[in-house]
Amino acid sequence: MLGILKKVAKKIGLPPGTLVHIGEKKVENIRIRLLDYDEYNLEEREIERIEDCFAYKDSPSITWINIDGLHDVGIIERIGKRFDLHPLVLEDILHTDQRPKIEDFENYLFIILKMLFTVEGSRMINTEQFSMILGSNFVITFQEKEGDVFDPVRDRLRKGKGRIRKMGSDYLAYTLMDAIVDNYFLVLEMLGEQIESLEGELMKDPDQSTMRTIHNLKRELIMLRRSVWPLREVINRLERDDITLIQEKTTVFFRDVYDHTIHIIDSIETFRDMVSGMLDLYLSIISNRMNEVMKLLTLIATIFIPLTFIAGIYGMNFKYMPELDWSWGYPAVLAVMLAIGVVMVLWFRRKRFL
Amino acid sequence: MLGILKKVAKKIGLPPGTLVHIGEKKVENIRIRLLDYDEYNLEEREIERIEDCFAYKDSPSITWINIDGLHDVGIIERIGKRFDLHPLVLEDILHTDQRPKIEDFENYLFIILKMLFTVEGSRMINTEQFSMILGSNFVITFQEKEGDVFDPVRDRLRKGKGRIRKMGSDYLAYTLMDAIVDNYFLVLEMLGEQIESLEGELMKDPDQSTMRTIHNLKRELIMLRRSVWPLREVINRLERDDITLIQEKTTVFFRDVYDHTIHIIDSIETFRDMVSGMLDLYLSIISNRMNEVMKLLTLIATIFIPLTFIAGIYGMNFKYMPELDWSWGYPAVLAVMLAIGVVMVLWFRRKRFL
Amino acid sequence: MLGILKKVAKKIGLPPGTLVHIGEKKVENIRIRLLDYDEYNLEEREIERIEDCFAYKDSPSITWINIDGLHDVGIIERIGKRFDLHPLVLEDILHTDQRPKIEDFENYLFIILKMLFTVEGSRMINTEQFSMILGSNFVITFQEKEGDVFDPVRDRLRKGKGRIRKMGSDYLAYTLMDAIVDNYFLVLEMLGEQIESLEGELMKDPDQSTMRTIHNLKRELIMLRRSVWPLREVINRLERDDITLIQEKTTVFFRDVYDHTIHIIDSIETFRDMVSGMLDLYLSIISNRMNEVMKLLTLIATIFIPLTFIAGIYGMNFKYMPELDWSWGYPAVLAVMLAIGVVMVLWFRRKRFL
Amino acid sequence: MLGILKKVAKKIGLPPGTLVHIGEKKVENIRIRLLDYDEYNLEEREIERIEDCFAYKDSPSITWINIDGLHDVGIIERIGKRFDLHPLVLEDILHTDQRPKIEDFENYLFIILKMLFTVEGSRMINTEQFSMILGSNFVITFQEKEGDVFDPVRDRLRKGKGRIRKMGSDYLAYTLMDAIVDNYFLVLEMLGEQIESLEGELMKDPDQSTMRTIHNLKRELIMLRRSVWPLREVINRLERDDITLIQEKTTVFFRDVYDHTIHIIDSIETFRDMVSGMLDLYLSIISNRMNEVMKLLTLIATIFIPLTFIAGIYGMNFKYMPELDWSWGYPAVLAVMLAIGVVMVLWFRRKRFL
Amino acid sequence: MLGILKKVAKKIGLPPGTLVHIGEKKVENIRIRLLDYDEYNLEEREIERIEDCFAYKDSPSITWINIDGLHDVGIIERIGKRFDLHPLVLEDILHTDQRPKIEDFENYLFIILKMLFTVEGSRMINTEQFSMILGSNFVITFQEKEGDVFDPVRDRLRKGKGRIRKMGSDYLAYTLMDAIVDNYFLVLEMLGEQIESLEGELMKDPDQSTMRTIHNLKRELIMLRRSVWPLREVINRLERDDITLIQEKTTVFFRDVYDHTIHIIDSIETFRDMVSGMLDLYLSIISNRMNEVMKLLTLIATIFIPLTFIAGIYGMNFKYMPELDWSWGYPAVLAVMLAIGVVMVLWFRRKRFL
Repeated sequence: MLGILKKVAKKIGLPPGTLVHIGEKKVENIRIRLLDYDEYNLEEREIERIEDCFAYKDSPSITWINIDGLHDVGIIERIGKRFDLHPLVLEDILHTDQRPKIEDFENYLFIILKMLFTVEGSRMINTEQFSMILGSNFVITFQEKEGDVFDPVRDRLRKGKGRIRKMGSDYLAYTLMDAIVDNYFLVLEMLGEQIESLEGELMKDPDQSTMRTIHNLKRELIMLRRSVWPLREVINRLERDDITLIQEKTTVFFRDVYDHTIHIIDSIETFRDMVSGMLDLYLSIISNRMNEVMKLLTLIATIFIPLTFIAGIYGMNFKYMPELDWSWGYPAVLAVMLAIGVVMVLWFRRKRFL
Repeated sequence: MLGILKKVAKKIGLPPGTLVHIGEKKVENIRIRLLDYDEYNLEEREIERIEDCFAYKDSPSITWINIDGLHDVGIIERIGKRFDLHPLVLEDILHTDQRPKIEDFENYLFIILKMLFTVEGSRMINTEQFSMILGSNFVITFQEKEGDVFDPVRDRLRKGKGRIRKMGSDYLAYTLMDAIVDNYFLVLEMLGEQIESLEGELMKDPDQSTMRTIHNLKRELIMLRRSVWPLREVINRLERDDITLIQEKTTVFFRDVYDHTIHIIDSIETFRDMVSGMLDLYLSIISNRMNEVMKLLTLIATIFIPLTFIAGIYGMNFKYMPELDWSWGYPAVLAVMLAIGVVMVLWFRRKRFL
Repeated sequence: MLGILKKVAKKIGLPPGTLVHIGEKKVENIRIRLLDYDEYNLEEREIERIEDCFAYKDSPSITWINIDGLHDVGIIERIGKRFDLHPLVLEDILHTDQRPKIEDFENYLFIILKMLFTVEGSRMINTEQFSMILGSNFVITFQEKEGDVFDPVRDRLRKGKGRIRKMGSDYLAYTLMDAIVDNYFLVLEMLGEQIESLEGELMKDPDQSTMRTIHNLKRELIMLRRSVWPLREVINRLERDDITLIQEKTTVFFRDVYDHTIHIIDSIETFRDMVSGMLDLYLSIISNRMNEVMKLLTLIATIFIPLTFIAGIYGMNFKYMPELDWSWGYPAVLAVMLAIGVVMVLWFRRKRFL
Repeated sequence: MLGILKKVAKKIGLPPGTLVHIGEKKVENIRIRLLDYDEYNLEEREIERIEDCFAYKDSPSITWINIDGLHDVGIIERIGKRFDLHPLVLEDILHTDQRPKIEDFENYLFIILKMLFTVEGSRMINTEQFSMILGSNFVITFQEKEGDVFDPVRDRLRKGKGRIRKMGSDYLAYTLMDAIVDNYFLVLEMLGEQIESLEGELMKDPDQSTMRTIHNLKRELIMLRRSVWPLREVINRLERDDITLIQEKTTVFFRDVYDHTIHIIDSIETFRDMVSGMLDLYLSIISNRMNEVMKLLTLIATIFIPLTFIAGIYGMNFKYMPELDWSWGYPAVLAVMLAIGVVMVLWFRRKRFL
Repeated sequence: MLGILKKVAKKIGLPPGTLVHIGEKKVENIRIRLLDYDEYNLEEREIERIEDCFAYKDSPSITWINIDGLHDVGIIERIGKRFDLHPLVLEDILHTDQRPKIEDFENYLFIILKMLFTVEGSRMINTEQFSMILGSNFVITFQEKEGDVFDPVRDRLRKGKGRIRKMGSDYLAYTLMDAIVDNYFLVLEMLGEQIESLEGELMKDPDQSTMRTIHNLKRELIMLRRSVWPLREVINRLERDDITLIQEKTTVFFRDVYDHTIHIIDSIETFRDMVSGMLDLYLSIISNRMNEVMKLLTLIATIFIPLTFIAGIYGMNFKYMPELDWSWGYPAVLAVMLAIGVVMVLWFRRKRFL
């Protein structure tokens, strides 16, 4: 998060709408893919120059332009000009620390979401910004790097499976958002596994590293929450029927995504509750163990301290100590010591200290 | 919860409305029961092929089709076609990790609830998904496995007791939901008993297992809350009079269920407050016990350490130690030791350490 | 609370509106008292058979029927028939674990409140359910047992004091509710006294029983809150002017009760804050005491341990220990020990450990 | 607070509108001051009999009647009759445990506020109830005792400074409320000073009395919050323009008071956050100190215990202990002891225990 | 904060609208800068007498008057008269402890914001009050001292870069607010760095100073939150289109600032969550370390105490102790001691105390 804040700080003072890429450069080359389809035909192209897409704008078929990589400001600028996008929209696309949001500019919708990834082998959650321009017959999407989240969507388009080819650009937008939100479940699954293994650790043998794991989980959940809460508002606005670009028959699908979002938020909150319960449990286990150690110390110390004192007494070198000369003095003292020891143990037992 | 998340994760990439059963298979055979009635007649049948129900759709009498077991996707699909249900509805029925919700599709209502069970002998709460399609003259219900929650309703239908046979399908829906919500009180009762026995444990002799019980209770309450909170919204929507399928004279009954739901939520929140109060009490008891042990250690150690030191002095082997030769030296030292011990005990008493 | 939950559980499966008394039987005999009045006349009767009241329904004078004891379901049923009450209303009257609520059935209002009592000599708060049917010219009230809360109201009616005889049934309802809410202040007073004595205990000498008192106070406040919060909504609805049975000139009085309710809620929240502040204080006092004990242990142990070690050295039996033969060896060692002790005490002082 | 609750409890059972003074009697004699003014003239009188004010009611000039002392119920009653006030208003004036509130009775406004004072030399906050009746050409104010809060207002009236003489009674009401709210800043200042000195204490040498100071500050803030939160609603209602008695040009001034109120609430919440942060810091400092003491104990005990053990071994009286006869046995043992001590200290250093 | 409260307290009693500068005097001389521009021309002047600006009021070009330093009340007063500002507005400008707010006086808008600075070398956040009067063709801004926040805006105006010269005074107001809000990111960056270094400290070697750092961070965040939360409301009102002075085409820019504000609030809340998580972690690390020390003490004490006791026994001076005369007595005792020590260590290992 700090890295982004630093870059934001550097941009201070520039006029609004100045296009600067704020974020990591995650891919070497920018890749532009175009998919143009209607119910009967489908054209799929890899694009070299962004201008090659521009002709599709006026065709009645649905055009999906997908751009992987944001570091070439020029491309974004030319798209902005051709599709008549507001400068602030272009700025937001390039600024990869946006909160999820939706803005309605009469002839197009601008949507920003976060894509969440779990990295193989690591327990970290990666975040990537996804922006989308939804027009009446086109969808332009911007990602920070190539990913495989949309591959099933492309497949469905190619095969004409489901209703996707028969519906408009709003349905394509829904499909893409649905793919992103579905991916969140993978992240939840990973977190669920971590919580489960943490629960196991707590049952067996928690140590200081358990505390760190709890701390990390809490942080991940804070970060996750930060990405998902605003998503709720975004999709809620799409689902309500006041946006002209969304047809009524599509809203039911957005309602479905909305339900998923609520489900995810719900799970995050439940996870938070669970993790904070685990923190309580951990602290109690640790302090309990400490108590056991203390009790042991008490037992051994309090039993032997008086006995050692008695031994000390008969170790004194006074000339006139009658007991020392008694022939049964030694065994008697040993017996007394034993008796004291036994009585103390019994007393501790009764007091439930043992 | 994790198990479900894993299955959800597997479904990612499929088009919306794809019918896949997500959840455990809880029964071997799917059982379909049909009840068709009006004020004067009642027909009850066990159905083999789902198509046998379809004729009842157009009859004016009220038809209740109950399906136990969700793993046969084909049955759900054929019902969907016959009763003209939206594909997302069918998907939600099969996906058993839904939150309670209600959706109004002009000619039918789709309702999802959670059934809660306490398992005999265990202190766990089991959850089962219950879905309902409410049409103007039919009710279709889906359960994950057979249960006896609805047996009293069937009985009342058969005997024509109460107003149930005279009212419409909305009243049947109410009766079923009421039966489910009533069942929650059994779960609350079980939790109440656990809390009561925990309170007893805290009064007598709490140990580390008490902490685990508190932790488990907290988890159960988190899970319970997750099932019941959305229920409130569901029933609230039914009670308000903007749903055409619900007749006005039935809303007063839904208001009654709503009151029950509020009562349950209230009890859960009270339980949560109580459990968290118990956690405080437990921690304080444990730390108090620790203090007592520490005080004892202090007492015994601080009394004997100086005494042992005195014994040590007269155990030194210096040639010229005049006290050693005094004939009353030994009893004098013993007396001094006793005096020191008594003074310390008194001083501790005054300082209220004892 | 558990007792009620068990009874609720037993009722599961019965059709709605089935009349079963859920709650304790708190009196042996049911007592029915009737008060019929207008500005000029007043009739007061003890009723044997509930049917004796029914004639009053159609008279223009205000009739107040008060029933103490709920275990005779038949009486409730006959009242229900005569006054044309909804079956669910009757059910709620008999079910004594209701939340405070108000329901508006065009020709009558149904109100449920909780009466709170402090039991002489005990620090427990007792709860009793109070239900009221408010019609245009009658008020029917149901209590679980006889009480003296309404005696001043009866007195005022008899003496024609104040405006009570000149106003309608809505004003009588207000007077009764006001009497109940006023009684809450007695409970608050008792709690306030407990908090004050707790504060005193914390100033002097808190022990483990203090923790239990705090715990019990917290529970009482949770329970109290549960009774009073919904009351707020109930009275708020009465105060707003959308209920036809409440005349406009009476709403100002309900506003007064509403203010009292807010005042009570406010006091409860303040009490909660205070009790939780006391918990913090208690825990800090206890841990502080522990620290003092620990410090003492440290002092005594750390001073005597090195001294004892020195004594131990000169208690060794080596043949060649030159110091042992020095004639001033013994006083020198004693002097060294004294010096070490003094230095350590001074050092502890400087380090502020003492 | 308890004192008030007791008095409230005593009033239970009296009809609404019964005038009883609930609160402390804070002055011996009731003082009534009258100020009558318009833009050109001003009359100021000390009144003996309340009836002397009544003539002013019908004059077009603005009349301000200020009553210090509430224990003479008769005066309140006569004012009530003359100015046609609702009995509940009179009751509320006399009952000094009201929450701040505003009530709009078409031809007059009834406002209750709390005046807050810091008592010289003490750190306690005193509360006094202030009630105000605002009519179209008069303002009647009730205080529990004489104070100097309004002296600047009187001065301004006398000198005709500012716009006060040109504006109506609503502006006078604003001026009085502004004077009261301004006074809150003095209380905030006092609390701010306490928090600052507490911060200083925490930096230097916190002890158990620090905890009590924190506890008291928390209580004061709870009490303060209780007085100020409802104030916000009161002034918010005055600022919005739906009250006919408040002229539009005056609302901007009420908006200013509203801003002050928000500012005060804001400061209280910030203080609460700060005090609770200080509690955390205090607890951590205390536990840290404890840790230091413990570490010292550990160090000294763990170093000397093994050494004492070695001395003990050579203090044994076995006949055949070869070391005892070695001439360098004693220095060798001393050297070994020294070596062990040094090694342990070094080891502790490395482990960062020291 | 206390300093301000003291000054506020001193002003109590003065009539509203009395102009007194409440705050620190941060600059010696007041500096007034004027910028007058339209699309084609730009005039920039340093002003000596405030009256020199007044002619610009009636010109159609946009005039920006910037005043650095507030201690000369006369200047504020004359501006107030010339631009017809409400006395309360002037009062608020001079009173530098205002909360961010916006007030709409039909022909001008009054806006108060907080500017936040990080001071080089320190970790403190400085606050300065910024007030702005926005008229249809002028903007007057008041700062407490000169700063470089607006230098880029001046630059852009001079160079005619971007759309700033073509748009109205509302766009200038936006640009200034945007510059202020952008500056917050620098503060966030500084806080982010502190949190990161704190995280590092927690990983390595936290000590008591860590606690103080956490405490200070918490305080800074409380203060920051206090400045930023009300900002949200301010900008939200500007973004909504009910203010006539803001043209519709400018609202989209205010929406952008609004997004930034939300982003900042979001970051603050996340920081708060993170810092409170760090507090938990810190406390757990400290208590864990304590536990390790305790365990070590237990180990060493419990092993040596019994051994010392045995040595004590054979140090007794009884005449008849047969073991003392055995020739293998000494080695046997040593062996027994060794055995006991080893057994205890092994037992501790198994019990996981070591």
